[in-house]
Amino acid sequence: MRYKLTIEYDGGPYQGWQRLPDAPSVQGALEDAVEKLVGVRSEVIGAGRTDSGVHATGQVAHVDIEKPFEGFRLSEALNAHIRPHPISVLHAEAVAPDFHARFDAVRRYYTYTIVNRRAPLALERGKAWRIGLPLDVDAMNRAAVHLIGKHDFTTFRDGRCQAKSPIKTLDAVNAERRGDKVAFHFVAQSFLHRQVRSMVGTLVEVGLGKMTADDVAAALGAKDRAHCGPVAPPDGLCLTRVDY
Amino acid sequence: MRYKLTIEYDGGPYQGWQRLPDAPSVQGALEDAVEKLVGVRSEVIGAGRTDSGVHATGQVAHVDIEKPFEGFRLSEALNAHIRPHPISVLHAEAVAPDFHARFDAVRRYYTYTIVNRRAPLALERGKAWRIGLPLDVDAMNRAAVHLIGKHDFTTFRDGRCQAKSPIKTLDAVNAERRGDKVAFHFVAQSFLHRQVRSMVGTLVEVGLGKMTADDVAAALGAKDRAHCGPVAPPDGLCLTRVDY
Repeated sequence: MRYKLTIEYDGGPYQGWQRLPDAPSVQGALEDAVEKLVGVRSEVIGAGRTDSGVHATGQVAHVDIEKPFEGFRLSEALNAHIRPHPISVLHAEAVAPDFHARFDAVRRYYTYTIVNRRAPLALERGKAWRIGLPLDVDAMNRAAVHLIGKHDFTTFRDGRCQAKSPIKTLDAVNAERRGDKVAFHFVAQSFLHRQVRSMVGTLVEVGLGKMTADDVAAALGAKDRAHCGPVAPPDGLCLTRVDY
Repeated sequence: MRYKLTIEYDGGPYQGWQRLPDAPSVQGALEDAVEKLVGVRSEVIGAGRTDSGVHATGQVAHVDIEKPFEGFRLSEALNAHIRPHPISVLHAEAVAPDFHARFDAVRRYYTYTIVNRRAPLALERGKAWRIGLPLDVDAMNRAAVHLIGKHDFTTFRDGRCQAKSPIKTLDAVNAERRGDKVAFHFVAQSFLHRQVRSMVGTLVEVGLGKMTADDVAAALGAKDRAHCGPVAPPDGLCLTRVDY
């Protein structure tokens, strides 16, 4: 049986989603839990290969397990075996054998959280990017409009990105302020490696008055990594939802 | 000079606000920072003596420091010295020499956060109480009404409470649901030891259908600790604001 899992995790303690030989990974922790549960190792394939320190409240993955499980029982059993990892299976359900968490995803949703204040973070440490200087959210939204649509996102792509093409379609991006919190919301079928953090870092330059909306349009048009602002830290990034 | 500090902290690593000889405390960490800054130890007196594991986004304290500081500079300097503690001075200002953070407080605000879902907490571990069974928020609000006003809160008072009188006035309490989060808000001039967690634990019994609103009224009227529901864990509790 193939199962679809919806997963929440604190990315802080992990080298990222992806299994690595000698570093803790979310994928590895989930595969360990599957193995403990059924005695057989099986690959857990995620929709988004989140980087080190990046969180999820709605990562989706699939895994093949021979033994039949009622979805609720499977999530309970995996959660029992995954302790004390800060990883939680929110939902599990049997799906068609050809369902693919990564290739079948039609929309991925990321949120990037900034705390816009001078004082260091205490309660949200590791969960947000603190920016001490005032951010102009309207200016960031005006600049973000230039990123929406189908573009060559080479400027906002990490050097190690393995995607065949730098052309992606960004469906939506917007920033909203609630008190001292500023949250960016991004929606696209898929993203390049570090694309969201690269876009956030660049938009923050606009929010700080160091770049204009036109500069962002020019940076995108340059198709040159050198035009990207500083890449935002992983702490504030969270994969919140994947649609199929 | 006397300074008023507004403080955020993650209560998880501490035995509580109050300084203890051999256990980490928020008060002790702040007093250490003051000593590092000016070379003299001075007591930091807080408005609320939060328990072990209880958090704050708006604790208020006062401290006497001989050296004059501009408020912003004092908060910056204390934050530099308090690292790596998850404690952050959000605001500092000089106040009148007779200002007292504890005795002058006219209203304290606490929030208690519940995540009402079956799956274990990953991102909010230590910051909320997870309750797997469905909670009836309307029923909890109807029961909570009985607690508002001036009462003998002996039922909701910890055995170790040192307050002279069990009579307190609860100004407001209400619960609200947002998705799978349920947040209680409490306002009073002052609370007895573990009063909020005792009230939350009892109201949750109502939310689970194990007690009725009338039972809560009767429990309050009994003035007997034995009528209190299970005390809610510290994780979900946060001191959010103190008015003067």
